[in-house]
Amino acid sequence: MALRVPLSRACTRATTSGPSARAISPLALRWTRNNATVAPPAPQNGAGSKGPTAIVFMNMGGPSTTDEVGSFLSALFADADLIPLGRLQNYIGPLIARRRTPKIQKQYAEIGGGSPIRKWSEYQAAEMCKLLDKTSPDTAPHKPYVAFRYANPLTEDMYKQLLADGFGGGNGGRAVAFTQYPQYSCSTTGSSLNELWKWRNRLEGKRAGGEAEVEPEGAIQWSVIDRWPVHSGLVEAFAQNIEKTLAEYPAERRDGVILLFSAHSLPMSVVNRGDPYPAEVAATVYAVMQRLGMKNQYRLVWQSQVGPTPWLGAQTSDTVKNLMKKGQTDMVLIPIAFTSDHIETLYELDKEVIGEDAEGHEGVKRVESLNGNPIFIKALADLAKAHLQSGQACSAQMPLRCPGCVSERCLAQKEFFAGQAKYLQAA
Amino acid sequence: MALRVPLSRACTRATTSGPSARAISPLALRWTRNNATVAPPAPQNGAGSKGPTAIVFMNMGGPSTTDEVGSFLSALFADADLIPLGRLQNYIGPLIARRRTPKIQKQYAEIGGGSPIRKWSEYQAAEMCKLLDKTSPDTAPHKPYVAFRYANPLTEDMYKQLLADGFGGGNGGRAVAFTQYPQYSCSTTGSSLNELWKWRNRLEGKRAGGEAEVEPEGAIQWSVIDRWPVHSGLVEAFAQNIEKTLAEYPAERRDGVILLFSAHSLPMSVVNRGDPYPAEVAATVYAVMQRLGMKNQYRLVWQSQVGPTPWLGAQTSDTVKNLMKKGQTDMVLIPIAFTSDHIETLYELDKEVIGEDAEGHEGVKRVESLNGNPIFIKALADLAKAHLQSGQACSAQMPLRCPGCVSERCLAQKEFFAGQAKYLQAA
Repeated sequence: MALRVPLSRACTRATTSGPSARAISPLALRWTRNNATVAPPAPQNGAGSKGPTAIVFMNMGGPSTTDEVGSFLSALFADADLIPLGRLQNYIGPLIARRRTPKIQKQYAEIGGGSPIRKWSEYQAAEMCKLLDKTSPDTAPHKPYVAFRYANPLTEDMYKQLLADGFGGGNGGRAVAFTQYPQYSCSTTGSSLNELWKWRNRLEGKRAGGEAEVEPEGAIQWSVIDRWPVHSGLVEAFAQNIEKTLAEYPAERRDGVILLFSAHSLPMSVVNRGDPYPAEVAATVYAVMQRLGMKNQYRLVWQSQVGPTPWLGAQTSDTVKNLMKKGQTDMVLIPIAFTSDHIETLYELDKEVIGEDAEGHEGVKRVESLNGNPIFIKALADLAKAHLQSGQACSAQMPLRCPGCVSERCLAQKEFFAGQAKYLQAA
Repeated sequence: MALRVPLSRACTRATTSGPSARAISPLALRWTRNNATVAPPAPQNGAGSKGPTAIVFMNMGGPSTTDEVGSFLSALFADADLIPLGRLQNYIGPLIARRRTPKIQKQYAEIGGGSPIRKWSEYQAAEMCKLLDKTSPDTAPHKPYVAFRYANPLTEDMYKQLLADGFGGGNGGRAVAFTQYPQYSCSTTGSSLNELWKWRNRLEGKRAGGEAEVEPEGAIQWSVIDRWPVHSGLVEAFAQNIEKTLAEYPAERRDGVILLFSAHSLPMSVVNRGDPYPAEVAATVYAVMQRLGMKNQYRLVWQSQVGPTPWLGAQTSDTVKNLMKKGQTDMVLIPIAFTSDHIETLYELDKEVIGEDAEGHEGVKRVESLNGNPIFIKALADLAKAHLQSGQACSAQMPLRCPGCVSERCLAQKEFFAGQAKYLQAA
């Protein structure tokens, strides 16, 4: 990701004598030295005593062009955290990926040639960091990074960029892994954290340092924002978007519109091992409905099932078809577990569910995704500020593995991130 | 149910001249006349202008003695709303019931010879009505009734008692069907409402009146409290019970205790047709965890699966066994979707899960059920008061059938109860 602010501003701060210079940590000075050839982000309220802070947005990502669809699907079907295919994962995964590529390429072509998720993620992260520089000056400058699980920028590349930018690699430094999935699932946030932990281990941990682990003080000190299903700013952003869409209906039809909150489904094998995602998604939905005064009827429904094994329902597509059959043709779809537009909104909801299942009926609409919504971006900044102030390595919930989990990787990952607490201090 | 208060008190009120007499509705006078031989409940703050009001607690019920187990199971397995067995329900149902009776009789014998649910329901309803007489004098006296779905007192008997007590049957009168399942499912509250609607139809509706429906003004005017998953009093009662149980652990172990919220599971066929229960149970859990400050780790788990078809998990029993295997032996079970003790708490949780799965480990405990908890009973009274004041026939959610529902009975039932709005007025 390109850095946007001229070096001079940061350097000026760093070399100025007086109070503002005293506020800069040794790491900040190291960070500035190591980045002499790149422009660091603007410490808009001056570099803080605990800055700089890297904020890493984690998400699944999507192919930015149709050419990237093949590698995207390969990465996706290789991920046993997301799609558990058993011992033959490495054989069946690529097979399914190859077979599905032409179909999925066509879908991306239909939504403009690629996923906008990278554009939105980079925008959200950069805007959030600008806000955070103002509201949390102690930990400024905040530097935005994006790490996708299945598409560029991949976690590996993000981590190398962090090192190139002077974080870790002997310099120490502070980074926050900020999941962009509001509700925690081992399939999503858990998978991203497993990947982050893997690359941390390869680039700064045991595998980087030979026999012994690299001196932990010189490595990046990580903390994780692992879930935020009912954050008031998130709820407010969803609620306002719903109100905006309801306002498009004639007044006499408005209260009769059914709200369908649609979240990506999970295989029942994942649900049944105790994944917390279905309950956290339901918490988001209930919070939004409470904010809306419980006026409209609603249901939480589940989309994007793949393959022959059972997944959690009711399915979004079936629900819309069934309601249409019953003559209930005014409904609003709300993507409730994703914060940016992507194939699941632009193709599955807009083209398949609204276009085909509802035959383009004018009563069936979708609310805008959060994308560049300023209330949402303010919520992200509030969340990050509260997290930095707390000094916590992760939420109290994160260290609890799913009761039915047998993954040693999950165990080691959770121990690593929770264990970072000993290096952290409250901002 | 026995009436507890001498007639004289109500009669005195009803025949006294002056302001208090003017506050009594014609129905109240009729009710008093028709009940000359039984003692009506005490109008503690005087009979209100809109009283009397019957408050009917609906629940599944349970056999009070082991002799009732057979008929209880017969009724249970005959209910396609609860256990959908397809076209052969009337043949397979009794078969399963007969085969399971000896085993279930043994279970009831082990918990003291019967279910305490009738005792608790009658106590809760009576205590709540006493509070309501004070807080909602306009709708007093409030008369408590219990209607169980599969055990005595059955809905049919409750309805006949209502008529015998002077409600409906030409006299008009006001009754509230108050579900004692905090979270709505078609299998539970929906089934109870279908049964109530059936008996209303037989005793006061089309089937009672021959060709034409009985004059609606003379029939009971019904409204429904159909769900209350996050009522603050309910949440507070759960939270205090959890805190009390956590206090039994040594201080240094307390924060490490895992909270397992256990709810009765549903068949996936019910979940997948869009039943709102799983999401509403999750809302309760999240509200309780927020009240507790999210300090302890938790999971929502599901118990009481029956038969070979897939049900929603993770299962309570598996979860406890898996956590024990991982060495996490401090956990508290919280029955979150039932408000009284019954076989699912006293036998399944206490004897099977704690006694067998956890081998009676001292670290595994269950919180007390709400039973006679005064905070809980106050919550019931607050709910009923707000409902009576609203003048609503039911929540905005109730008229929405499950998207995959094909039951004409559900449709007619919902239309009936929602349609009662035209006869109601705000208290």
